[in-house]
Amino acid sequence: MSPLLTDFYQLTMAYGYWQLGMHQREAVFHLVFRKNPFHGHYTVACGLATVVEFLNQWRFTESDIAYLATLPDVQGNPLFPQAFLDYLKQLRFTCDVDAIPEGTLVFPQEPLLRIQGPLLQCQLLESTLMNIMNFQTLIATKAARTCLAAQGDSVIEFGMRRAQGVDGALSASRAAYIGGCSAVSNTLAGKLYDIPVRGTHAHSWVCAFPTELAAFTAYAQVMPHNCILLVDTYDTLQGVRNAIEVGKYLRQQGADLLGIRLDSGDMVALSIQARAMLDEAGFSDTAILASNTLDEYVIADLKRQGAKISMWGVGTHLVTAYDQPALDGVYKLSAIQDEQGQWVRKLKLSEQKIKISNPGRHQLRRFFANSQYVGDIIYDLDFGIDDVPQARHLDEPFHPLHLEDYDASVDILQPVFKRGQCVLQTESIHAIRQRAIAEVQDFVKRDDVIYPVGLEEQLYTLKTQLIDVIITPPPGRKSKS
Amino acid sequence: MSPLLTDFYQLTMAYGYWQLGMHQREAVFHLVFRKNPFHGHYTVACGLATVVEFLNQWRFTESDIAYLATLPDVQGNPLFPQAFLDYLKQLRFTCDVDAIPEGTLVFPQEPLLRIQGPLLQCQLLESTLMNIMNFQTLIATKAARTCLAAQGDSVIEFGMRRAQGVDGALSASRAAYIGGCSAVSNTLAGKLYDIPVRGTHAHSWVCAFPTELAAFTAYAQVMPHNCILLVDTYDTLQGVRNAIEVGKYLRQQGADLLGIRLDSGDMVALSIQARAMLDEAGFSDTAILASNTLDEYVIADLKRQGAKISMWGVGTHLVTAYDQPALDGVYKLSAIQDEQGQWVRKLKLSEQKIKISNPGRHQLRRFFANSQYVGDIIYDLDFGIDDVPQARHLDEPFHPLHLEDYDASVDILQPVFKRGQCVLQTESIHAIRQRAIAEVQDFVKRDDVIYPVGLEEQLYTLKTQLIDVIITPPPGRKSKS
Repeated sequence: MSPLLTDFYQLTMAYGYWQLGMHQREAVFHLVFRKNPFHGHYTVACGLATVVEFLNQWRFTESDIAYLATLPDVQGNPLFPQAFLDYLKQLRFTCDVDAIPEGTLVFPQEPLLRIQGPLLQCQLLESTLMNIMNFQTLIATKAARTCLAAQGDSVIEFGMRRAQGVDGALSASRAAYIGGCSAVSNTLAGKLYDIPVRGTHAHSWVCAFPTELAAFTAYAQVMPHNCILLVDTYDTLQGVRNAIEVGKYLRQQGADLLGIRLDSGDMVALSIQARAMLDEAGFSDTAILASNTLDEYVIADLKRQGAKISMWGVGTHLVTAYDQPALDGVYKLSAIQDEQGQWVRKLKLSEQKIKISNPGRHQLRRFFANSQYVGDIIYDLDFGIDDVPQARHLDEPFHPLHLEDYDASVDILQPVFKRGQCVLQTESIHAIRQRAIAEVQDFVKRDDVIYPVGLEEQLYTLKTQLIDVIITPPPGRKSKS
Repeated sequence: MSPLLTDFYQLTMAYGYWQLGMHQREAVFHLVFRKNPFHGHYTVACGLATVVEFLNQWRFTESDIAYLATLPDVQGNPLFPQAFLDYLKQLRFTCDVDAIPEGTLVFPQEPLLRIQGPLLQCQLLESTLMNIMNFQTLIATKAARTCLAAQGDSVIEFGMRRAQGVDGALSASRAAYIGGCSAVSNTLAGKLYDIPVRGTHAHSWVCAFPTELAAFTAYAQVMPHNCILLVDTYDTLQGVRNAIEVGKYLRQQGADLLGIRLDSGDMVALSIQARAMLDEAGFSDTAILASNTLDEYVIADLKRQGAKISMWGVGTHLVTAYDQPALDGVYKLSAIQDEQGQWVRKLKLSEQKIKISNPGRHQLRRFFANSQYVGDIIYDLDFGIDDVPQARHLDEPFHPLHLEDYDASVDILQPVFKRGQCVLQTESIHAIRQRAIAEVQDFVKRDDVIYPVGLEEQLYTLKTQLIDVIITPPPGRKSKS
């Protein structure tokens, strides 16, 4: 991945900072999102390993520089002078990055990443960090919801064919596994990320033989120990009968029919009939796998209606997060050193309250009681936080947030890069997935659905003061009211 | 891109075909979609150049093979024998591919791609071809709709930060440009695909300076000939006043203020006020660019309400196709040679009519009258098509489709690969884009919104016969009714 994988305005701003001698000013940006996706109450952080991979090789190549040299301004002259391009060519990543570990539950306005370093570098990274984190976090959350709906049944991610591009498929597979899927169909994702890969066969396999029975028999011959048969190419229940025939053949070979797959029609009625037919024929261990535009809502409905389905192949609606295909993450400057090296805290106002950012340099403290977490407080690194923390609810700042009855607390942003060197201990994707599954299962046991997140009192006061300063018109200039 | 970028079941089926000696059987697959996206009436074909790039380097590497060798069956034994892996290692792409050129309008059930070649190869390609074509076609169509709503105003694609992964961003930029956008913000897409890149500056630029006026002035100093100022960091109308100040400064320098950008608030009221302020100050050529969760519906509304916006920065909703984030493309086997080398035509039935595929080996003929196209007919290469074609409407097969008053016709699937060698003449992305724009503008002038697409009569007859054969139960077996 090239550093050119960024919005063009990052490069024009970078040039501006360089031209004005501001490029080395120490700055702090946070990556946050504004709302839990899918009208939900939690979000699963995901994407950090991909960010690390990107930052570890962040460097402009000769060919990147040559491309930038071709870009004109509106008068047709080179937009970037050679001295700036020379600067980019020798540039290396030297920022500090702190982040919430992947697989951790996170909530609106919480800093998923904090980047501190030279203003120019922090700025150039904005688009890429958002691209990676927004999407993987979105899909891990969607997967967690889907797996919850499946109530412990295995959920397999089958979405590659309708994913949004090559990496829309690959990183969706990664995030889907972290969110709780037990396997994916994307073989390259299996190779790259050490994820189990699974699959059945397509309709084309059945069509390639004179009859469905011949097709099933052939598949059983070549895949006796990996045999799940797709039964709906012509007529689903006849397909089940054929699968049972082949199941008997498999048993004669010392193998077994692992499952059948339903891919169209009335999944409730068909699965109930298929289950009865399989049971009656002595195939009560043969799974029924369903696929066909599934998501957490459809799975929950099918369960409610008594569908006899025990494995779920979930594709398009998972990997594209069909009902909300983007997370609204943003990346905002919240502090910058002045020429004397003093931190100046910054916020962005907006006509839309949800778009007002939080100033400062943030850490997030999570509080626990009986090993369940009970609330989070965003605080400023310089102000710190008291043992009996004073804070305001993020969404209702007139209400204090009380977190007194906790028995443990932890700062959950962890160092990832120090001065450009990666200090994050590599964690296996399986460990990340286990954390995500455990956190989600703990969280959904809570009685109060809205999780309390607060701004520490001094940070809250600073924010209101900064807003006041901005909205107070300077002397002699008319206020907008 | 590795051939492993495919659903795992393609590999188990490939192994099956190989094990059964069927892997070299000549087969034909078509890639089609089932419904125009976004409740629309046309679709813009896109993605072929990416398909060509993928197929030109389609080859299993040593490391791909080593990975496949690690995969176990349920008993823990290797799933694939070494002889099969050796076969894959030496495998080269040898198929014929015919395709509809990118930027052409296409309609449901029409073959975007026809692949003919050894069954095993055709099967392995399924997932990747769909991944590429489904997404780029979706986004090119979304971009065309967005540009239509903008009524000739410039539309710039700004979506990278919330796109679905790295390639979700890159290939969305490519498709958005083909669909009619005038530029994109993704700099790497600019480099890779020869697309113009554009941008303004972010809120963080404003926050990095003591005041907004200082920030605007600094930006004008460093980018005098590329200056579009984002005015909503603190207070939009005050931002406009500051931009006007800076516009005056730019004129003193022999430059000009190209535009201002609105990113929040009531876009109608703000743009009308901003336009009046700019005009009054003598900046009637300064553009007003809007961004903030725009799509074709919002743009059309803003236009209707009299918003004074002349450039549109469209992000998330374009690059994720937010209201329908996947095209329902499929890839179906429709003919296979038997052991004697005779074509056997195939279809897949379904409980859902829309999922029934068309048998045969297809070409698509498009008919024109007065240079406008008036109807399409899908026909079988072996049956051919008469000069006065006999056909049935795809969706209403009891109604004949009459196409008699045409003055020209053309077969629109073009050769892309012959026996694995690329024969497609490279076409610039700009030429593809011009075709798409011209076709969309012609199409929306039509009176009849539903474009007629038919199945040639002999092909229709074959299809009904095949369905009859399948749904007629064999002697002695109970029908499903």
